[in-house]
Amino acid sequence: MGSSAPGVAGDRTASINGGGATVIDKGVDFANYFCTYAFLYHQKEMLSDRVRMDAYYNAIFENKHHFRGKAVLDVGTGSGILAIWSAQAGARKVYAVEATKMSEHARELVKANNLQDIVEVIEGSVEDVTLPEKVDVIISEWMGYFLLRESMFDSVISARDRWLKPTGVMYPSHARMWMAPIRSGLVDQKKNDYEGSMNDWLCFVNETKNDYGVDMSVLTKPFSEEQRKYYLQTSLWNNLHPHQVVGTAAIIKEIDCLTATVDDICEVRSNFSSSILIENTRLCGFGGWFDVHFRGRSDNPAQQEIELTTAPSLDSSTHWGQQVFLLHPPFRTSEGDDVNVSFLMNRSKENHRLMEVDLGCEIRQSSGKLLPLFKNKFYIE
Amino acid sequence: MGSSAPGVAGDRTASINGGGATVIDKGVDFANYFCTYAFLYHQKEMLSDRVRMDAYYNAIFENKHHFRGKAVLDVGTGSGILAIWSAQAGARKVYAVEATKMSEHARELVKANNLQDIVEVIEGSVEDVTLPEKVDVIISEWMGYFLLRESMFDSVISARDRWLKPTGVMYPSHARMWMAPIRSGLVDQKKNDYEGSMNDWLCFVNETKNDYGVDMSVLTKPFSEEQRKYYLQTSLWNNLHPHQVVGTAAIIKEIDCLTATVDDICEVRSNFSSSILIENTRLCGFGGWFDVHFRGRSDNPAQQEIELTTAPSLDSSTHWGQQVFLLHPPFRTSEGDDVNVSFLMNRSKENHRLMEVDLGCEIRQSSGKLLPLFKNKFYIE
Repeated sequence: MGSSAPGVAGDRTASINGGGATVIDKGVDFANYFCTYAFLYHQKEMLSDRVRMDAYYNAIFENKHHFRGKAVLDVGTGSGILAIWSAQAGARKVYAVEATKMSEHARELVKANNLQDIVEVIEGSVEDVTLPEKVDVIISEWMGYFLLRESMFDSVISARDRWLKPTGVMYPSHARMWMAPIRSGLVDQKKNDYEGSMNDWLCFVNETKNDYGVDMSVLTKPFSEEQRKYYLQTSLWNNLHPHQVVGTAAIIKEIDCLTATVDDICEVRSNFSSSILIENTRLCGFGGWFDVHFRGRSDNPAQQEIELTTAPSLDSSTHWGQQVFLLHPPFRTSEGDDVNVSFLMNRSKENHRLMEVDLGCEIRQSSGKLLPLFKNKFYIE
Repeated sequence: MGSSAPGVAGDRTASINGGGATVIDKGVDFANYFCTYAFLYHQKEMLSDRVRMDAYYNAIFENKHHFRGKAVLDVGTGSGILAIWSAQAGARKVYAVEATKMSEHARELVKANNLQDIVEVIEGSVEDVTLPEKVDVIISEWMGYFLLRESMFDSVISARDRWLKPTGVMYPSHARMWMAPIRSGLVDQKKNDYEGSMNDWLCFVNETKNDYGVDMSVLTKPFSEEQRKYYLQTSLWNNLHPHQVVGTAAIIKEIDCLTATVDDICEVRSNFSSSILIENTRLCGFGGWFDVHFRGRSDNPAQQEIELTTAPSLDSSTHWGQQVFLLHPPFRTSEGDDVNVSFLMNRSKENHRLMEVDLGCEIRQSSGKLLPLFKNKFYIE
């Protein structure tokens, strides 16, 4: 059977939940997760995100006091950019840890920028490496779509607990997840895609019966569930226009990077309310995004606090976009209505780097009338 | 770092070459290979390939003497279609082995078609299962792009050596790989894509130096190698029009499914010559495809020999398409010229289901002049 499959594994794979005491198969984790980071093309994509680059650049160079003469650990150094900037900002020593063969390019880049005496690139998982000393700063760009996809912060926590001095500083220091009700034409597009796929399937079942004598109608239900999950229940990457946000945004998670544990982030649970701000609009679903801050610590603060936000923006969009959770069918709503949302996100059992979301939502109309809307499962893949 | 990566592993992954005595990590093999076959959408794609379906349907039903009252093993049953047809053609017992959870759907399909007394669906790798008896027929649709991509025939060989009776029949019985010189606009498209990517990179290096104080020019060489491999050296799926074939096609491999060993197929080595048939055309590369035949065995032949070909065709194209290996730059050639090709294909060390190709080619012009063209490495990913 010809297939693009081999080597191009789908999102749904058989590795083990890392949220408890279970073992993660490293070969599987590499095949599923790490391998794309070994490509320069992928590194370039991230290095070309000006908002991301500016935030980290400014966070470092506007806060040289945190770096001058200090020891720094860069978790997941990739091309080595943060490690190089840390050295240029005056660090005494930078340990730049990278799990993939990208570490070889990072080493070349460090040398080409004359920083090999300061920056030591170490290939390996940060959970496994041994450093000669504890560090004053841990810097890392670990954020995935909607902050926690990829579950890379687990590795930062592990590094922090082993290698950060008691007085050490985290870069970034804080992270928040946000959600807001949105309108979006995607809801119509995905509905059409799903219905088109089902119509196509029904023709296929008919033809297979007539031409090949096999009745495949028993597979219609599982096929529709599979397609439903794919088209309607999988969150989408999108760059939302600010005008698509139709209600107030709410913080659904706050993380102090200095103290958060893996248990703290395994589950994201939030009940929030959003006021609709637009007259006579369509509630098509919810957009999720995050921001991080570089504030230092209370006893050693940043001189210049920097924010990196991935909120819907006209001219400051990032490669993260936002994650969109669509409502089928969308719902007419208007200024004065309130949307009450229950949000629960957990790691997928099959792959701890992917998420499952239980999202429930009701509308309290301005008249006082309460409309229960739905309770639905979503997948962040 | 936001990335679509986690769960969507690239083609290039860390599993181990299965061509010798080395161990294949099953979790990694699942993450890289098997998982896509667990989706009904993917099964439907293959079941909708009329040429494929017709060939197997006719091979079975025009040769019921091979099935009536017999025991059959379907290797990689997927949805169960071949097992069901085998039962409908009169088999006494069919063992339908499937490594993924698709086996559950196959079991449902068998039941819905009232064949549960004949067809036993077994979930597992065919290398690991135990059958209660040896079989008279092994049927399988194992062919990947350009025949051997996915290396699934290894599993068929394993099943044959363990479970086929000495008098048993293979369905299909024979397979061949073909190559021919082609012309294609893809050569210009990929060249443009590559050059665009390099131009973009050079701008990026410039900006990163000016705006962020990091000189990334040392990465230009590895980046260009990565992009060259991706755009210029990776074989492409394409549905070639017969008019794109500009010279005689040659058989580069013949396989007798009854006797072939894994060693026989680990390497495909062929030196062949092709006569250009078109006046004043562009040799843009080579197209590769395959055919299989259902002939039975010499002492128990098919009553109706069936052929399934994936050669370039106007109205009988298949989901396999052809694999295209592009020549950069393309070469002007004309009727009367001969192209001498040396072709060597081996399994990739990183992933035994993917291939590496060494392709060398020279043109003997009708004048007698010999033009060495190139020797290049390609990747079937």
